[in-house]
Amino acid sequence: MNASLLHPTEEVKAAIADGAPLVALESTIITHGMPYPANLEMARKVEAVIRAHGAVPATTAVVEGRIRVGLADREIETLAQAKDAVKASSRDLAASIVQGRSAGTTVSATMRIAALAGIDIFATGGVGGVHRGAEATFDISADLTELGQTATTVVCAGVKSILDIPKTLEFLETQRVPVIAYGSDDFPAFYTRSSGCKADHRLDTPEEIARAMRLHRELGSGTGILVANPIPEAAALDPAFIDGTIAEAVAEATVRGIGRKELTPFLLARINELSNGASLQANIALVLNNADLAARIAVAFARLKRE
Amino acid sequence: MNASLLHPTEEVKAAIADGAPLVALESTIITHGMPYPANLEMARKVEAVIRAHGAVPATTAVVEGRIRVGLADREIETLAQAKDAVKASSRDLAASIVQGRSAGTTVSATMRIAALAGIDIFATGGVGGVHRGAEATFDISADLTELGQTATTVVCAGVKSILDIPKTLEFLETQRVPVIAYGSDDFPAFYTRSSGCKADHRLDTPEEIARAMRLHRELGSGTGILVANPIPEAAALDPAFIDGTIAEAVAEATVRGIGRKELTPFLLARINELSNGASLQANIALVLNNADLAARIAVAFARLKRE
Amino acid sequence: MNASLLHPTEEVKAAIADGAPLVALESTIITHGMPYPANLEMARKVEAVIRAHGAVPATTAVVEGRIRVGLADREIETLAQAKDAVKASSRDLAASIVQGRSAGTTVSATMRIAALAGIDIFATGGVGGVHRGAEATFDISADLTELGQTATTVVCAGVKSILDIPKTLEFLETQRVPVIAYGSDDFPAFYTRSSGCKADHRLDTPEEIARAMRLHRELGSGTGILVANPIPEAAALDPAFIDGTIAEAVAEATVRGIGRKELTPFLLARINELSNGASLQANIALVLNNADLAARIAVAFARLKRE
Ligand SMILES: [Mn+2]
Ligand SMILES: [Mn+2]
Ligand SMILES: [Mn+2]
Repeated sequence: MNASLLHPTEEVKAAIADGAPLVALESTIITHGMPYPANLEMARKVEAVIRAHGAVPATTAVVEGRIRVGLADREIETLAQAKDAVKASSRDLAASIVQGRSAGTTVSATMRIAALAGIDIFATGGVGGVHRGAEATFDISADLTELGQTATTVVCAGVKSILDIPKTLEFLETQRVPVIAYGSDDFPAFYTRSSGCKADHRLDTPEEIARAMRLHRELGSGTGILVANPIPEAAALDPAFIDGTIAEAVAEATVRGIGRKELTPFLLARINELSNGASLQANIALVLNNADLAARIAVAFARLKRE
Repeated sequence: MNASLLHPTEEVKAAIADGAPLVALESTIITHGMPYPANLEMARKVEAVIRAHGAVPATTAVVEGRIRVGLADREIETLAQAKDAVKASSRDLAASIVQGRSAGTTVSATMRIAALAGIDIFATGGVGGVHRGAEATFDISADLTELGQTATTVVCAGVKSILDIPKTLEFLETQRVPVIAYGSDDFPAFYTRSSGCKADHRLDTPEEIARAMRLHRELGSGTGILVANPIPEAAALDPAFIDGTIAEAVAEATVRGIGRKELTPFLLARINELSNGASLQANIALVLNNADLAARIAVAFARLKRE
Repeated sequence: MNASLLHPTEEVKAAIADGAPLVALESTIITHGMPYPANLEMARKVEAVIRAHGAVPATTAVVEGRIRVGLADREIETLAQAKDAVKASSRDLAASIVQGRSAGTTVSATMRIAALAGIDIFATGGVGGVHRGAEATFDISADLTELGQTATTVVCAGVKSILDIPKTLEFLETQRVPVIAYGSDDFPAFYTRSSGCKADHRLDTPEEIARAMRLHRELGSGTGILVANPIPEAAALDPAFIDGTIAEAVAEATVRGIGRKELTPFLLARINELSNGASLQANIALVLNNADLAARIAVAFARLKRE
């Protein structure tokens, strides 16, 4: 690990050196994805879930111009209350460091940092994707291209359902990214268990996913893997209700001219308001569920590597 | 070669070790591209054409969860009659192995396997491309991105003419893939000798193509090369007839809602029916023609490498 | 450096060996971007500006099938008057060499050659981008993908304003390319200082940009960096005037069916005629301004590397 570039905690450094299981975690979900204090509670619970499986959580962020791999609890608290933290994709990291900024790391930035640090698995809520209307705007998240270029496995509940899911699946196919649904034939839709689209592959155990990870890496395409883990049944929202809410929020963003980097945070906040907090509860449940699966995959993968 | 990942025949293993000329061959053309027994006859003739030039054919496939590089004749026969073989792109390989499946390898999977095995040239009928209507569906074959990321030379008769050829050429340009027409100023259209689009470059001998391959590799862009070899004059179909037939089949697919992985096999089968088998005859002729050119390029390239 | 592939001047070879600052320069601006003798004067002045900062200019071109890195003055003169020079992107280089051609190198080819030669910074006028109407034509410059794949820093005055700038910025974001405006909050529009789009990052000194370059390289995404340097105030054109002129030239190209490789040279020539030479004067001013900034970044970066 490049010691002048990456600043891991002692715990993370030791885990990497020992070949112990680790799960990377992003931080835009803390800085831009959820309101305080729900974001702080979520961040702590996610780490606890990962530790419960014997894996080490590594929440990544840029803190005052330094890339942190793993955060102390008080640092998570500071980040959860920060008003000036920006949102950094992998392409924003260098400038953010030069400017001495603090930033939540997106999926693309976290994948890149994880790859540099030697962490193979990363858990998030939903990855970015092809925005609705992208045939006219060309607004397509760098997360998808990072998945096409960086060999990190990302566990999510599908792409955020504010996006165009069929186009996102086509783009992932064009980018040669394996999409594996966990325990399901369908590709999930974040707040609900099915998007109506079939997943390309279904695997039913963390061990199988770990084996696919090893094989995919040996195949040398250089792409990551997207593991789509449906939201738990009990936490899933009613499809008609949430689709209507999303459509309302998207229409509002269009009317108010909100786009690019501001779009996703605006939509998530507005959907939360319109759903009286139901979307936030679902979001927390699915993130915990993804952390749980990612930890079990990390344990299985660490075992495979030792063999 | 990674011996636990790739399973070559003894002949292929020896040829690679000796620096002898090899030509990789895909197998979705066997499992999904042609009906039995035409597929079997074609697969055998293609291998014979390659051997006639002193090169070694390496038909790739996934057989019961193992990546095979080169197949025994009885294995080709089994694959040609298989009802349960899936279609595997490079991103599907790992999951197919974990699931113990048998699969025909697409252009993208075959390029990746060839690159891993150290085989520089690969012959096929037509590569995938940008589908008609992709401005709305985003349906763009992973073959094009694999050409943008994997340094294998692919000899084809153009992209399948069921696709949008001008958009495919633009996409290949954006991906930085050299497109070289062999002995022609025009980019061919699979069943016919010209698509109406100019090719970016024309080279007239296998030796020139072999030199371009070596130079392109040294330039380090990491992309493959697309060699477009027009169907032999005598086997070419009448442009007006085949265009009408393709349009009819495409319209039928739209009405019946056939898309994604099912689309190309459906169209090829339907065009064959509508043309009373003429399209299948043309397809076989152009594949043999491509194998012939690929073998001659492989021989010239092996000679260059020895110098 | 691969001595059979790249043919540097003695001066360039020595500068690379010494770790001295170098700035690569493209040559389609000479062969296809400006009329003679304005192109020759511009090429000479650009080299002088770079030398004035103690850096070494390396104008790249393909001369009779050899990739030249640095050109003697009489070679620049020959290129400036050549009628038969083609336009070579990175994917055209190998075929151009085999064919023994002379070619102006585009941004993508020059980035690739610079990367191979070990030159970190490259100055140009404007990079290629997403063409207007690309949602229907898929006409997107390989320059953008080269920026997504090759770790060269490109100093420009924005993308050529004949393009769709918002779509180009989205595409660069999807490709994970850092876009840094120098001394400005806005992304410039070639002939004018603002495109109306915000830049993602603003840095105000060559030293900061050099630090961002080093960090970005260490982050390992493999992408280049686009440094957007607004045209000097005194040389900038009136936005309403130039926008009208561009619209007129674009409409004319559409009517006359001019597209693909011919489009950009046609538009630049036509805009120059329609503006009575004002666009050419602005183009020369911004190129010199970019060479000046690139040289200062090169000096700062060479110093950083020595530390
Ligand atoms: Mn976006
Ligand atoms: Mn497709
Ligand atoms: Mn173009």
